[in-house]
Amino acid sequence: MFDRPGGALDAEEEEDVWLQIRAEARRAAEEEPVLASYLYSTVLSHRSLEPALAAHIANKLSSPTLLSSHLFELFRDVCLRDAATREAIRADLRVVREKDPACEGYLHCFLNFKGFAAVQSYRVAHALWRQGRHGLAMALQSRMSEVFQVDIHPAARIGKGVMLDHATGVVIGETAVVGDNVSMLHNVTLGGTGAVGGVRHPRVGDGSVIGAGARILGPVRLGENVKVGAGSLVLMDVDDGLTVVGNPARVVRRKADSGPSVPGKDDLNDYV
Amino acid sequence: MFDRPGGALDAEEEEDVWLQIRAEARRAAEEEPVLASYLYSTVLSHRSLEPALAAHIANKLSSPTLLSSHLFELFRDVCLRDAATREAIRADLRVVREKDPACEGYLHCFLNFKGFAAVQSYRVAHALWRQGRHGLAMALQSRMSEVFQVDIHPAARIGKGVMLDHATGVVIGETAVVGDNVSMLHNVTLGGTGAVGGVRHPRVGDGSVIGAGARILGPVRLGENVKVGAGSLVLMDVDDGLTVVGNPARVVRRKADSGPSVPGKDDLNDYV
Amino acid sequence: MFDRPGGALDAEEEEDVWLQIRAEARRAAEEEPVLASYLYSTVLSHRSLEPALAAHIANKLSSPTLLSSHLFELFRDVCLRDAATREAIRADLRVVREKDPACEGYLHCFLNFKGFAAVQSYRVAHALWRQGRHGLAMALQSRMSEVFQVDIHPAARIGKGVMLDHATGVVIGETAVVGDNVSMLHNVTLGGTGAVGGVRHPRVGDGSVIGAGARILGPVRLGENVKVGAGSLVLMDVDDGLTVVGNPARVVRRKADSGPSVPGKDDLNDYV
Repeated sequence: MFDRPGGALDAEEEEDVWLQIRAEARRAAEEEPVLASYLYSTVLSHRSLEPALAAHIANKLSSPTLLSSHLFELFRDVCLRDAATREAIRADLRVVREKDPACEGYLHCFLNFKGFAAVQSYRVAHALWRQGRHGLAMALQSRMSEVFQVDIHPAARIGKGVMLDHATGVVIGETAVVGDNVSMLHNVTLGGTGAVGGVRHPRVGDGSVIGAGARILGPVRLGENVKVGAGSLVLMDVDDGLTVVGNPARVVRRKADSGPSVPGKDDLNDYV
Repeated sequence: MFDRPGGALDAEEEEDVWLQIRAEARRAAEEEPVLASYLYSTVLSHRSLEPALAAHIANKLSSPTLLSSHLFELFRDVCLRDAATREAIRADLRVVREKDPACEGYLHCFLNFKGFAAVQSYRVAHALWRQGRHGLAMALQSRMSEVFQVDIHPAARIGKGVMLDHATGVVIGETAVVGDNVSMLHNVTLGGTGAVGGVRHPRVGDGSVIGAGARILGPVRLGENVKVGAGSLVLMDVDDGLTVVGNPARVVRRKADSGPSVPGKDDLNDYV
Repeated sequence: MFDRPGGALDAEEEEDVWLQIRAEARRAAEEEPVLASYLYSTVLSHRSLEPALAAHIANKLSSPTLLSSHLFELFRDVCLRDAATREAIRADLRVVREKDPACEGYLHCFLNFKGFAAVQSYRVAHALWRQGRHGLAMALQSRMSEVFQVDIHPAARIGKGVMLDHATGVVIGETAVVGDNVSMLHNVTLGGTGAVGGVRHPRVGDGSVIGAGARILGPVRLGENVKVGAGSLVLMDVDDGLTVVGNPARVVRRKADSGPSVPGKDDLNDYV
């Protein structure tokens, strides 16, 4: 993860998601006149995905002290400068559309998923953090937590194709690392254990899925394609492909190719 | 549940809750002049409960893109057209007043309980969903989640007399069914297990009580008057009148008329 | 706790935290011009900590119905009248700065920690409650829950030097008592068990630490310096200095001076 061989999406791929969002917005505006002016200002009046997203999220995060116009410029500038962020935004949209049975299209995710909006806000805060603009990055973190109830430290490292489903209550700490194509339900914590200094938070491998309310604490490593059951408390490393459940968590199923490890516990496998 | 024999409340019953809210608002405005103009615009300036509720919730959910005036008309029109919704609103108010020791009257619930406001927002979104107005219903779902931190899919079916106490973090999925007089504490999830298609979420019977942070996942059935302990993980059907606790949940107490099933576990019975 | 021998801080100590916040704000405004006008209006334009805090929180809690100017006067007046509240505010700031590895200074806590803002909002609501202004106190409680996702009943009693880290989803009930220097992570519940009348909520002793998502229910007593593991369900009294974990919770470690009680469970000790 985090290496993007061959560089970013080509222009055609970048264009594709945006064209679909526009087409969906045009249909939605015809079907629901109450939403037409909202859809025009949020989607149809923009030339590309980045300024549309910047306007949408600036609108949500703005306050009497963080002006919408400032936020818009910040978001747009980060997106325009950084090809990896542009690619990640599109990967996030694609993943929600593919994985969430309740998602009715790109437009729905773009407009209505606060988990998507929170991740994009984090991406901008993270870019600011890396530029040394810590004060502004932390102001954004705080505002995200108020508005979306998602608290991601701007220094955390998060891959692309990430889905926070429902999203309320997610907390991701300063030294956490989250791979590509990781999905988390609401109320997931990637937290610390009270230790000070160095790596204090988990590292979650590509393709992992973390159930609602699971807490993964301390500098533990979850491998790739790990599943963590809802409400689990994980305090240990977990190898690639394993499923863990419970408080404290234990392994209930080994890698797919080696079959279930705990007879009769197959029913627990899916409740992530 | 969901059948309402004999139709809705008669006009007198409908009037009753509203008269009490007005009387409480007049007293509150006298006692606390700081709140007087708020109480006037929210309660005392209205002729009946429905437009008052519509104005109150429109005010809370409004944003630069979902205008308060549009929301007011939507909420008022749904309430005026649908006798079952009017009855459900009153049943929700009555239940909070009866069950919550911290509730000081109808007015307090009407003004201050975000769980009550979230359920009424869902009722309107559900009516819109049934009219085929999915875009608008999902925009309301999204806004409810930001403002009240309650994420109820508009296609879910929820009975009357429902209380979401404290409410932060409640998630109710698309195919969930919740009976009459069900109470849930904060952070309850009626969620899926990753399955796609068909019924993916729980069915909760009339009179059940679900403790804080409990997660009930998959197409399981909870009978009537079931109690689920705080922090439980429920992955199985539960018969009428049983109490379940733990992660994963197990039965700790049978129906009231058959006495406790697990000696020494009586103390667990109440922590819903 | 709650007795403050020797009275409040002297004027010099009161001044100290405020001078540091101002100095940090001046540096931050130089480093980040985008934030300069925000820092001026929130910090640098004020003569002392109390009106600055009152303006900051009034700004966050204001709504079309609870005007910022009213809230500012309420907050300022409570702070000016009550030396214990002024002391508690400073103790809360000091504790966050000392305990939270992600806190970069007083200013960061003052501006960006919604747990800090929520506790100060509670302090004002509590003062109003004690003056018999229940309607206004409960309106503030409701607004805090919407804006910060922290639901503290204004009748609860909370000491000084209290930290709500991340804070989303915290619920503290009407008859709860929380000592000095208590820290709680997000999603902690100090809740009831459905009993009506009398003391229905926990009492948490000085210096205790409660992990993310822990639920402590009913009129139980936690002693001083107790640690409660993340996700625990506590339904029993816990003596001074003990560590409890699990659902339901059990003691895993006795007081520091008597060594660990459960061999091999040392690793559980820290996940609060």
